[in-house]
Amino acid sequence: VSLTKTELKDIQSLLTKKGRKLKKSFLAEGVRLLEEAARHRMRPEAIYYSESALSERAKFLVERFQKLAVSAEPIPLRQLESLADTESTQGILAVFKEPSTALAELYRPAYRRILLCEHISDPGNLGTLIRSALAFEFEMLILTGNSAEPYSPKVVRSSAGAIFGLPVAVCENGELLAFVTLHRMFLVAADIAGQAASVQLRQIPRDQPLLLAVGSESHGLSPEMLAAATARVRIEHATSVESLNAAVAGSILMKEVYELTK
Amino acid sequence: VSLTKTELKDIQSLLTKKGRKLKKSFLAEGVRLLEEAARHRMRPEAIYYSESALSERAKFLVERFQKLAVSAEPIPLRQLESLADTESTQGILAVFKEPSTALAELYRPAYRRILLCEHISDPGNLGTLIRSALAFEFEMLILTGNSAEPYSPKVVRSSAGAIFGLPVAVCENGELLAFVTLHRMFLVAADIAGQAASVQLRQIPRDQPLLLAVGSESHGLSPEMLAAATARVRIEHATSVESLNAAVAGSILMKEVYELTK
Repeated sequence: VSLTKTELKDIQSLLTKKGRKLKKSFLAEGVRLLEEAARHRMRPEAIYYSESALSERAKFLVERFQKLAVSAEPIPLRQLESLADTESTQGILAVFKEPSTALAELYRPAYRRILLCEHISDPGNLGTLIRSALAFEFEMLILTGNSAEPYSPKVVRSSAGAIFGLPVAVCENGELLAFVTLHRMFLVAADIAGQAASVQLRQIPRDQPLLLAVGSESHGLSPEMLAAATARVRIEHATSVESLNAAVAGSILMKEVYELTK
Repeated sequence: VSLTKTELKDIQSLLTKKGRKLKKSFLAEGVRLLEEAARHRMRPEAIYYSESALSERAKFLVERFQKLAVSAEPIPLRQLESLADTESTQGILAVFKEPSTALAELYRPAYRRILLCEHISDPGNLGTLIRSALAFEFEMLILTGNSAEPYSPKVVRSSAGAIFGLPVAVCENGELLAFVTLHRMFLVAADIAGQAASVQLRQIPRDQPLLLAVGSESHGLSPEMLAAATARVRIEHATSVESLNAAVAGSILMKEVYELTK
């Protein structure tokens, strides 16, 4: 069955920031991403697929969603391709409701490790950080400043599906700093002028939740975030490069925190 | 002075793989990348700039290259933009001769740490690995399989200029394996089915050069590379994600090697 022009346009609008904001929904495409969604028990609003383009693995996935009573519509490949953000579609995509990004709503007092990204505007870097955060048992991500949109197709894809397993809050620095004070968080700031991470991170108290803050590649964290930090840490490396890629730096620090506090 | 149509086409061709192969040259644009080139004493064949678009920092850079007797041509902004791979040009770009990528020619017996990338096809990931390699004092990069082209604009940009400081060899697996045997290299393979990196890497011998091998995200290293490995290591993380981003995984392993062998 073909989608009507209006239906098609409605879904296509989710490829844009404006459309996502309006519909409070987002898209994810491809077998691997949707398998991760299923694994994290994220139920799509609807899936769209083209029988002719489905692998065995993709067929199995369609059945799996059908058993969960997800609306599953077979559509012509030509239509599916017009909804895809990538060049090769794998014949399946899904629409999800955007989870809340309200900090107060997402936060749980049991959280011990939270990642803060300030001005991480590259979607590939943000997606990679989400993936590493889930791998290193960070329980939540907070985005401030001019960061990429967490549910844009490129972030979703770069997260390799980890976006389905990690609560993501978006807020202003003011709200964040009040939150840090309220919950007595130990705020660790990544800072190339900071002290050696390998030494500093050993001082992390066990009885305080940790907030690890990573800033933009070109400018680092804002002065107000640095001022609020309990510790400022840098990753030791040779001076032949000025700094590491932001996703790499954040991931290395998360790994160290994971090993020291697990 | 405007470039002639032919001159313009000649430089534009460097934005394509075919053109780079033919001319054995590559492009780098923007102040930061070219400052890194200067810092690593890489002398461009020529620079092109548009006076009106230059910042003070960019003007200083133009003078610096002029003092090195580099051919520096002022061209109209419209022409410069047609040569740029990015949307905002910063008013300056340079043409460099592609260094040799022959393994035998680049290798020095004094090298202690070499990174091997097999099938790293994403240019962003490859550039990021080049940047981390230089940061963690790896002295050379070897590319095998279906890896991205090291001197493509996207790799050059993602390396944040580290490409100017790291010799990059490109070869076939056969040549590489002969090289490993000849130089008695300790070959460490990143492998999600391997043993804990934190334990395994402590066994690295001090008197043997180390080759760290990282494979593609979807398929890992090839069976022949795994078979040739002296040790197979995995980065410990939660099972909530299947694997880390390839650039993150490679960077984490390089950092551990750097700390254990420095």
